Amino acid sequence: MDAASVRLAELLRAGLPADAVLTDPDITRSYGHDMASFCEAGTPAVVVLPRTVEEVQHVMRTATELRVPVVPQGARTGLSGAANAEDGWIVLSLVRMDAVLEIDPVDRIAVVEPGVVNAVLSRAVDEHGLYYPPDPSSWEECTIGGNIGTASGGLCCVKYGVTAEYVLGLDVVLADGRLLHTGRRTAKGVAGYDLTRLFVGSEGSLGVVVRAVLALKPRPPAQLVLAAEFTSAAAACDAVCRIMAGGHVPSLLELMDRTTIRAVNDMAQMGLPETTEALLLCAFDTADPAADLAAVGALCSAAGATQVVPAEDRAESELLLQARRLSLVALEAVKGTTMIDDVCVPRSQLGALLEGTARIAEKFDLTIGVCAHAGDGNTHPTVCFDASDAEESRRARESFDEIMALGLELGGTITGEHGVGVLKKEWLARELGPVSLDLHRGIKSVFDPLGILNPGKVF
Amino acid sequence: MDAASVRLAELLRAGLPADAVLTDPDITRSYGHDMASFCEAGTPAVVVLPRTVEEVQHVMRTATELRVPVVPQGARTGLSGAANAEDGWIVLSLVRMDAVLEIDPVDRIAVVEPGVVNAVLSRAVDEHGLYYPPDPSSWEECTIGGNIGTASGGLCCVKYGVTAEYVLGLDVVLADGRLLHTGRRTAKGVAGYDLTRLFVGSEGSLGVVVRAVLALKPRPPAQLVLAAEFTSAAAACDAVCRIMAGGHVPSLLELMDRTTIRAVNDMAQMGLPETTEALLLCAFDTADPAADLAAVGALCSAAGATQVVPAEDRAESELLLQARRLSLVALEAVKGTTMIDDVCVPRSQLGALLEGTARIAEKFDLTIGVCAHAGDGNTHPTVCFDASDAEESRRARESFDEIMALGLELGGTITGEHGVGVLKKEWLARELGPVSLDLHRGIKSVFDPLGILNPGKVF
Repeated sequence: MDAASVRLAELLRAGLPADAVLTDPDITRSYGHDMASFCEAGTPAVVVLPRTVEEVQHVMRTATELRVPVVPQGARTGLSGAANAEDGWIVLSLVRMDAVLEIDPVDRIAVVEPGVVNAVLSRAVDEHGLYYPPDPSSWEECTIGGNIGTASGGLCCVKYGVTAEYVLGLDVVLADGRLLHTGRRTAKGVAGYDLTRLFVGSEGSLGVVVRAVLALKPRPPAQLVLAAEFTSAAAACDAVCRIMAGGHVPSLLELMDRTTIRAVNDMAQMGLPETTEALLLCAFDTADPAADLAAVGALCSAAGATQVVPAEDRAESELLLQARRLSLVALEAVKGTTMIDDVCVPRSQLGALLEGTARIAEKFDLTIGVCAHAGDGNTHPTVCFDASDAEESRRARESFDEIMALGLELGGTITGEHGVGVLKKEWLARELGPVSLDLHRGIKSVFDPLGILNPGKVF
Repeated sequence: MDAASVRLAELLRAGLPADAVLTDPDITRSYGHDMASFCEAGTPAVVVLPRTVEEVQHVMRTATELRVPVVPQGARTGLSGAANAEDGWIVLSLVRMDAVLEIDPVDRIAVVEPGVVNAVLSRAVDEHGLYYPPDPSSWEECTIGGNIGTASGGLCCVKYGVTAEYVLGLDVVLADGRLLHTGRRTAKGVAGYDLTRLFVGSEGSLGVVVRAVLALKPRPPAQLVLAAEFTSAAAACDAVCRIMAGGHVPSLLELMDRTTIRAVNDMAQMGLPETTEALLLCAFDTADPAADLAAVGALCSAAGATQVVPAEDRAESELLLQARRLSLVALEAVKGTTMIDDVCVPRSQLGALLEGTARIAEKFDLTIGVCAHAGDGNTHPTVCFDASDAEESRRARESFDEIMALGLELGGTITGEHGVGVLKKEWLARELGPVSLDLHRGIKSVFDPLGILNPGKVF
């Protein structure tokens, strides 16, 4: 450790328990990154693991005093490098602040610390007959603080929306250590600018969330799933459009392409139909899900589905969802490494995006599997490549970029739910344009005039 | 007109049609204010009525050049003075930009200009089987631009949320005339800071919305309404808590107190039950609303309702809603003038707020009727007074303030849906505290460094 780092650790230890300040480089390096590919990461000088708001304030005051960059972290399951650190930084891990402070069935809110794991909260509220919808694939590991930082989505968004819609109020430690309260505990409120939403998805660049008031829903009935097979991705996308134009409100509407189906079968022998080009999974958690599935099944058939199979019960439904949840891991097994894109287009453009992605895969001679939150037009084209092959890695990166360009052309966004981080910051500039970028910089400087909060991320 | 105003009008006319620049003081004065009580208003130098984005840009460039304050306006149905002008200002009325540009049933979005009247949009999307939920009481007059500026609510919020939740993307003319695009047309998107939400509820202090992409829902079945009578407000609030804790999702859950009921009867002979202390109206727009109403009716009875009357059909339901919609106008007739408060508390505190409001009415010897979006804990204690009586007016203002203080004490907010404007800006500072206020000022200066956009409003 250099002298600066020694002094930094010393000052941090003055306001934190001994076990909450880690400086062993082997350990700090392991905290240096999230799960994104192609994003540089260094060796943080210190990892701090505070348990209280006051300890977080101490960390930020120290960082301000010494002008040391800080990256707030949850479970580091992010896919854009937003939680990556550079050499000499402070990693501020919130995982020890993991209390569920309050669950109120009348006000339908939960008050939580940022380190609570998504699944832990989900189970806790379920015991009160309540439901916290946002369910990113990593929900068994990822934290609510991380979900807020990256504005996470999940499978349920088509009906229930994303994390942003469930954050009512926040306590945030600012760059200089001051504590800010935003938002409210009430169902409605319009007092002042919406600072709460400004923090959601800001990837730790504006402040450190230390407490959140979350909105909850009543627990819906268990969902019933239908699977529909199509001989082309275009037909499956047509079915998605018919379902949504028909006024249906599925609790889930997912698409897996042939590459994804095969990858899942190879990994888990799930017996998915390999002859099909695209599989749609549609679910309802309504009072009469079988009736809703029947109506949707008819629309799928009209769009050219060759098979429409409603699950008979909850167990069958779970099996189908299991297959979908395995998709990304299964695609990773294809060539060892993946780059998971996150392009979201208006759902009317979903067919065009899938067709274009297939063209791009062919052009670059790559395997690109697509699974999608089809009802939201949010696709995850997943480029499979061998990271030890430099030439193939280059093609992977280029195809990834072309898919984003295509998404923008189709009126979409470069990120539906994974965020910008390091991975897409050049692309963010392209999506936002200079006027918006200028305002982004202005806002950043209001909250973090010294630029110590996760610098170099987002934009 | 003074020389400065003459020059201002001249410069504005260089980029606007002759009929779009009004300078007659009798006319400009009539544009000087919205519907709030107790808010000062002056005589604007000019009223401009642009039809295009370029014309709005010209207005803002001119205002920047001459450092003249601008207040953007919709239908001026606001209740906080946010649309009020001072002497010499430019009123920028968006009412001529009233096109519905696009309605898309697959993507479930509408693209509109800001001057579209809420009801016009609602009817237009209804023709496509779609639903734009936010329904402020003034929906037949108020504009979408005004709804966005004030983050309007309405009767449907308990199930469908407020305006903010339906704004996906905006085109905004900034103070210096630059055009900013925010947000997206897609169902999801997390590219950069949430500038869209920052504009919603900012009361024209950050920019001028010239186009909006709005999310739509499929049209739900017609709602069926139930009325329940209670012998105390406390029992009615208890019923609200039981309904929400019971996991029900009503499309409307409103409360009228005895004062309000009598006022409505006096005005419209609606035959509401005057012996009751509080009336709850609850509605469902589900597949089987009668079953849902039966369950809720049982909860009301358990909470002490003396009468539970489900509407037999849509016509009866409409009549009950009509009574609720007349409440504010009817209360205005009691003493000639009203101050309508807008305190929102966690719904578990609704009973305490009503009890406290009754105490305050007694203390100040005033008639204060309360109607409330009870399911959201959002109350409108409405102080009835004779504006020609200075002493009574003073008591009215004081009671109004005490109700806000009570709301904050109960963990609530000073404004659930009406906004801050001029009326509540001292109170906003009290609710937000110095750290938040500091950030508000910083954000304002990023968007409007010269302070020409609706200065003196909000904070």
